[in-house]
Amino acid sequence: MTNFFDPAGLATFDPVKMAKCDLARGEHLFLGLNCLEAGQSQGAHIHASADKFYLVVSGKARISVGTRTEEMGPGQVAWCPAGEPHGIAEALERTVVMVGMAPGPNK
Amino acid sequence: MTNFFDPAGLATFDPVKMAKCDLARGEHLFLGLNCLEAGQSQGAHIHASADKFYLVVSGKARISVGTRTEEMGPGQVAWCPAGEPHGIAEALERTVVMVGMAPGPNK
Repeated sequence: MTNFFDPAGLATFDPVKMAKCDLARGEHLFLGLNCLEAGQSQGAHIHASADKFYLVVSGKARISVGTRTEEMGPGQVAWCPAGEPHGIAEALERTVVMVGMAPGPNK
Repeated sequence: MTNFFDPAGLATFDPVKMAKCDLARGEHLFLGLNCLEAGQSQGAHIHASADKFYLVVSGKARISVGTRTEEMGPGQVAWCPAGEPHGIAEALERTVVMVGMAPGPNK
């Protein structure tokens, strides 16, 4: 794995549902992509023991954390502390979101 | 603290040296900004027990991980696994870098 990469260039899409790909996987931190076609979503869920963030790389989506849902565009970040429900309510166009989670999904 | 923010709008600069600010601080994950005027740098250093990444928000900088140094621009990511030396060798223009580290600096 290289230490230097451009997330925008690594996106892959699935016409049926949101696609995921890994960017980096360390002992403490995971980075990946969530790639959504317009209308796709990621259901609200909780990581009881992991902090997470979404960073919109491209596109536009409605992202929820706790009881709030915001329309977010490129460069914007949603912070999802451990125990807080969060999800991507809807991609309003083709959207790439970088995700970071600590500890990662293998922990 | 809000769960939704735009890192680009939160940058603050110091004419003397690289400026830092916090974006989010969880039990497992920390997000912050490194803000550099042209010519400023962050010396190479090691976090023995934390994974980290740099994501260039704006500007252009030479970023090093291990023995490699790359010129990086907006949207590009440098992955710095625990134990690997890394730093911002030089900002080539005014540059904002988002940093994520797990566990955070308080651990």
